[in-house]
Amino acid sequence: MPDKPLILVCNDDGIDAPGIAALAAAMDGLGEVRVAAPVHEQSAVGHAITVRDPVRAFPWPFRGPSGSIPAHAVTGTPADCVKLAIDKLLPRVPDLVVSGINQGPNTAVNVIYSGTVSAATEAAILGIDAVAVSLCRWRGGDFEAAGLVARSIAESVLKKRLPPGILLNVNIPDLPYDRILGVRVTRQAKARWEESFHERRDPLDRPYYWLTGEFVNLDEGEDTDLGAIDAGYVSVTPIHHDMTAHEHIVPLRDWTWTEKH
Amino acid sequence: MPDKPLILVCNDDGIDAPGIAALAAAMDGLGEVRVAAPVHEQSAVGHAITVRDPVRAFPWPFRGPSGSIPAHAVTGTPADCVKLAIDKLLPRVPDLVVSGINQGPNTAVNVIYSGTVSAATEAAILGIDAVAVSLCRWRGGDFEAAGLVARSIAESVLKKRLPPGILLNVNIPDLPYDRILGVRVTRQAKARWEESFHERRDPLDRPYYWLTGEFVNLDEGEDTDLGAIDAGYVSVTPIHHDMTAHEHIVPLRDWTWTEKH
Repeated sequence: MPDKPLILVCNDDGIDAPGIAALAAAMDGLGEVRVAAPVHEQSAVGHAITVRDPVRAFPWPFRGPSGSIPAHAVTGTPADCVKLAIDKLLPRVPDLVVSGINQGPNTAVNVIYSGTVSAATEAAILGIDAVAVSLCRWRGGDFEAAGLVARSIAESVLKKRLPPGILLNVNIPDLPYDRILGVRVTRQAKARWEESFHERRDPLDRPYYWLTGEFVNLDEGEDTDLGAIDAGYVSVTPIHHDMTAHEHIVPLRDWTWTEKH
Repeated sequence: MPDKPLILVCNDDGIDAPGIAALAAAMDGLGEVRVAAPVHEQSAVGHAITVRDPVRAFPWPFRGPSGSIPAHAVTGTPADCVKLAIDKLLPRVPDLVVSGINQGPNTAVNVIYSGTVSAATEAAILGIDAVAVSLCRWRGGDFEAAGLVARSIAESVLKKRLPPGILLNVNIPDLPYDRILGVRVTRQAKARWEESFHERRDPLDRPYYWLTGEFVNLDEGEDTDLGAIDAGYVSVTPIHHDMTAHEHIVPLRDWTWTEKH
């Protein structure tokens, strides 16, 4: 690694969201910072990539604490931003990708829906150390405190490096910095959304549906992301993109699948 | 379960794709079949859900081998289709969700980008047995043979039931039915896309980018999805939505994260 690591900052809330301004500011001084983020909000896009349409990238005026930060707004998903930045927008492969700071938690089952996490996952797939950062508050909040946490974690990652393919999913409690108790390394909690769609009628009396839901934690474990946040700690969960349920491979080999097996 | 299981069929290629017609036909007779699928193609949408816009559902004329199948076209992602069907479109919670038959493989790292898999994953999150089915050919192919395979696997699942939270990701080789050698239970292969964006110029001389890439298998294991397909077998991979890299939790607890830890 050159003396100054190259750090790519991205998000899913869009390039003009307060969270990415705080995250880029927090990375300032840790390395050479670049930004590539969606033009528009891309929440809950999961690990989408754009394959049927072209994407565009526009230079974007982005200010950090010590001046202008080279930035591009991209007409795509968070994963597109990371792919395009690495292939076309950055001077070299970055040493670290940080994504966020997301407005709202990305804990438990929500990890799979998260655009913030998908940007970091894409980096990990490409062999680059990556951290996704979310603030556990749906509106507003202390992004400066969250930025301080993100900076500490990014520093640790730049120093120690992550195992190949592993990224960190960081959730920060909605507390002033001096009331955050520390960091816990956690697993995703088992949880679910109890959802329903509101049925409404448009002016032509045709039905349409809005997704609504209530989040239910099914997991009392203290070692979970939700447990850490509730106790006032930063949650750091190592995640990967291999979805194989390895422990179920051998039992399934006993099944009779077809007349051919 | 009532005598006749309720089977929801969905996909990501769109309700008028040949693969979903073959899949619905293959399920005919195994249970009461319903269809809910996107109006338009939704490939590579990952586990996206629609949270900022309403979704709509339109009754759709869908023909199966023994007559009309109740069907809805949904203006959303594959995961939206499953959520909306379960909450609003179906008479009761289905016993099985089958997604596909996708035009093209969903193996290795591609699982995370797949809309076909995400529909089945959403069902598993909601506690419903689910199977994603893909035909390993990018255009055309023998969907009838793939349908026979899908039917055998769906029958096995209806008889044995899957462990909670586990779904099956099924990839079918592009072979005539009588040349498919059988079923192998596999893990996702380690692989990556070597990607680059083609830079082009629009008529106003502004740049735009198309994603292109070459898929590279990094994994010689015979127990992988890619290995099974190459050898002429159907690949059945048990997957789940927990992305936690459990084996990395304890080592990461030794890290110094902040001055507070």
